[in-house]
Amino acid sequence: MENQLSMQFDSSNDLIHYLNSSKLSHDEYLKSLPPGFHFRPTEKELIVDYLMKKIKNEKMYPSPIKDVDIYKFNLENIADVYKVEGEREMYFFTPRDKKYKNGQRPKRTTIDGYWKPTGADKTILHNGEAVGCDKSLVFYKGKPPCGVKTSWLMHEFRVNNLPPRQRTHEDDMRI
Amino acid sequence: MENQLSMQFDSSNDLIHYLNSSKLSHDEYLKSLPPGFHFRPTEKELIVDYLMKKIKNEKMYPSPIKDVDIYKFNLENIADVYKVEGEREMYFFTPRDKKYKNGQRPKRTTIDGYWKPTGADKTILHNGEAVGCDKSLVFYKGKPPCGVKTSWLMHEFRVNNLPPRQRTHEDDMRI
Repeated sequence: MENQLSMQFDSSNDLIHYLNSSKLSHDEYLKSLPPGFHFRPTEKELIVDYLMKKIKNEKMYPSPIKDVDIYKFNLENIADVYKVEGEREMYFFTPRDKKYKNGQRPKRTTIDGYWKPTGADKTILHNGEAVGCDKSLVFYKGKPPCGVKTSWLMHEFRVNNLPPRQRTHEDDMRI
Repeated sequence: MENQLSMQFDSSNDLIHYLNSSKLSHDEYLKSLPPGFHFRPTEKELIVDYLMKKIKNEKMYPSPIKDVDIYKFNLENIADVYKVEGEREMYFFTPRDKKYKNGQRPKRTTIDGYWKPTGADKTILHNGEAVGCDKSLVFYKGKPPCGVKTSWLMHEFRVNNLPPRQRTHEDDMRI
């Protein structure tokens, strides 16, 4: 049995199988990590190890990334609920809605304000291939275009070359 | 059995017991961590969760901190052996030798150069108490005082209020 356990833990992919077969929840597992190990994913890890898996509906690794449609909530309420003490960042999988039914522009307004792109998009490379991009957005409180700029910054990571068209409400995922 | 496992994983302290009782090595365990979790310890974690335990000879958490007397090696050799791809930092527990037999000043010379303090020491607080300090040192290649400054920077973390005197060669530990 002990040997079997070591085998199950040989890599992080085996970890997923182990957690699925045991009664250990992802939250319990995350609580058991040794001190000093924090979720500080690289761009490649976010795109390849998390976002792609999510889009393909594959089994996910335990992580602090939450499923939250951040456009449907007040930003401060989100922070109250999801901000972990000592961590500067929060991570979300968020579906993107369209702004207009027949257009391609994403809806950027929330309950109490709107997200406005800032700076240039960044291409994320993995093994020499462009696998995704990183768009920076700043949160403005109030109604566009007269909102007040805040210090909230979002990095929106998207996967390049998505699989064939999905339902409108899930045509893209975002962290 | 499964229930028992969940209990063993309830916290990172239980993790130590679990790893001791299983055949899973610390290295195997570290390889099994989900992507995105990197060793980025806070100062408090380095002092309280690692250095204090080390000095008290307590069971250690799995971590990438290696036992290396860095003053006994050529710095580039250390980097060749211990630098992990994609990580900017290396972590070591290092004993400190005295410079002179009857003095208190630490020896700072290595095989190929020496470490020279830079900036002011920083006190590390935990629950309002000074638990340790962080000294920054820069590596100079060659013989003092004529070495050539390099871009290698070391943070030497020490624990305050050490337990009663230990053997000379282990009178202090350092990361």
